[in-house]
Amino acid sequence: MAAAAARHSTLDFMLGATADCNAVLKALQPVFQEQGMTETVHNWEDHGYLATYIQKNGSFANLRIYPHGLVLVDLQSYNDQTKGKEETDRLLDKVEERMKELFHGNIKRVKRLPAILRGGAIDRYWPTADGRLVEYDIDEVVYDEDSPFQNIKILHSKQFGNILILSGDVNLAESDLAYTQAIMGSGKENYAGKEVLILGGGDGGILYEIVKLKPKMVTMVEIDQMVIDGCKKYMRKTCGDVLDNLKGECYQVLIEDCIPVLKRYAKEGRMFDYVINDLTAVPISTSPEEDSTWEFLRLILDLSMKVLKQDGKYFTQILQKDSWRKLMLE
Amino acid sequence: MAAAAARHSTLDFMLGATADCNAVLKALQPVFQEQGMTETVHNWEDHGYLATYIQKNGSFANLRIYPHGLVLVDLQSYNDQTKGKEETDRLLDKVEERMKELFHGNIKRVKRLPAILRGGAIDRYWPTADGRLVEYDIDEVVYDEDSPFQNIKILHSKQFGNILILSGDVNLAESDLAYTQAIMGSGKENYAGKEVLILGGGDGGILYEIVKLKPKMVTMVEIDQMVIDGCKKYMRKTCGDVLDNLKGECYQVLIEDCIPVLKRYAKEGRMFDYVINDLTAVPISTSPEEDSTWEFLRLILDLSMKVLKQDGKYFTQILQKDSWRKLMLE
Repeated sequence: MAAAAARHSTLDFMLGATADCNAVLKALQPVFQEQGMTETVHNWEDHGYLATYIQKNGSFANLRIYPHGLVLVDLQSYNDQTKGKEETDRLLDKVEERMKELFHGNIKRVKRLPAILRGGAIDRYWPTADGRLVEYDIDEVVYDEDSPFQNIKILHSKQFGNILILSGDVNLAESDLAYTQAIMGSGKENYAGKEVLILGGGDGGILYEIVKLKPKMVTMVEIDQMVIDGCKKYMRKTCGDVLDNLKGECYQVLIEDCIPVLKRYAKEGRMFDYVINDLTAVPISTSPEEDSTWEFLRLILDLSMKVLKQDGKYFTQILQKDSWRKLMLE
Repeated sequence: MAAAAARHSTLDFMLGATADCNAVLKALQPVFQEQGMTETVHNWEDHGYLATYIQKNGSFANLRIYPHGLVLVDLQSYNDQTKGKEETDRLLDKVEERMKELFHGNIKRVKRLPAILRGGAIDRYWPTADGRLVEYDIDEVVYDEDSPFQNIKILHSKQFGNILILSGDVNLAESDLAYTQAIMGSGKENYAGKEVLILGGGDGGILYEIVKLKPKMVTMVEIDQMVIDGCKKYMRKTCGDVLDNLKGECYQVLIEDCIPVLKRYAKEGRMFDYVINDLTAVPISTSPEEDSTWEFLRLILDLSMKVLKQDGKYFTQILQKDSWRKLMLE
């Protein structure tokens, strides 16, 4: 947390009634001016005030007063010391105090979010597939490479272990064994002696778990050799030693686009007991059919059905893994 | 998402080298000015530029250029329409485009976070115990009351079901059965015929799960009747019908501070097979001993040991529930 970055802090007040914008400005002005900050005020006719406060050290604050009763404070400062954090907190404490004096009990809600660290060496913010903001306790960039297909990052989190992030989407953490188990049928399937086809799955988690269950043969088709290279080195809790070789007694890994492979198998009449689709949510393919994500998913499903035995089973994620991670617990 | 709130968007650029602040400003100025925004520029001697752009409709933007090679854009607008989101996105797209033209490949990282919604009717941001920012997909405030001890909120999330939040700390979601099972010993304990004491646990989850296992007697000591009232109505997936009555065939719920109860039991020689400490991370107590959180925890532990049989077991959370929810999966 002491790493160099811009620290952006926010403090929001929802008032119980419309605001006398000028009174709020007058009450808070001294708090900023006591810090030696210089003020610039913009006054809209119908939209309230924006006051900007600038400090000599490069920090600045915005005070935005909306007349319907919303007061938003932003404070941005660049520093690599804990001291900056304390100064910011003290200033925001004073603003909060002054606002409470001014409005007595008539503030509906006060909200101070954890400061957002911007431009630091390590990016802590990895939104979910449904666009929610989530901060991780990342303390190390373990791997960061561009393959011909995607950006591959492996970041270490104190809480979740190493996390695989493909082109910005959180794919799997070392702590996500439950995801792997879920997509395998939650322990209710008997893989012994079975023929299994895994589409994608470059982190090796599914392959590692299924190989333990004595299948006849598992074929995994992963497009990106570099995902395998990164994971076999840094996601060993997920994949064990299964990616150390692309061939084992009861498994093989093909480094190929799965669409032509599925077509070939369909043509040859090669059939499987299980097809497990572990492709990324935003598909990567070298095939021209990929007009849209949904068409791609339908194509994968159609082709999978062609290589599935009469009583075979098809497993896929119905949600992003990040959601799975939680829904698993229901 | 279409509810009335201020939408605060950010767009950050980490450059590959130090920045010519003036060149960046000159390149981006037109993007804002084309929107009819008026500019105010502050130029520090050693700390770069801050440009503020103001639009007639009450929106504004900050462009902060740090000379060591960091460019941060903030855009704040108040609206209750999707249109505002699209306009913001278009403006940020243009900024990104212009920056990429200016620096060609020499931008190390571009980061655009999901917009933060500020001052809306429903608060979506509930930080973790370790201070990380997390946004939930809250769509309804189900319950929001102040008890004599704390603020009690139950919020509905599409993903997690109803979530119990005590004084701002996420306590338990209806999807968190795994947490309840973990604190009960992960299914490895035999509660049949046993005497069990639960400290706290007002959501009723532990009580409900243990009662199913035919214990001799479970005593739950919860300080806050209002937590029970809220949970028995809105967290039924967690507590079933167990909180409908404070007494059942094999359980009783005492609405009391657990410290005097523990002291009384210790004095009486009342002994238990299991003590399960499910108190909130920040303790609530009416007892004077509570000088600090750690002293409180030690006191609870000391007293618990006094009421525990020789071969009895003490379970507690070693981490906040929010962490548990994930660590459970390891």
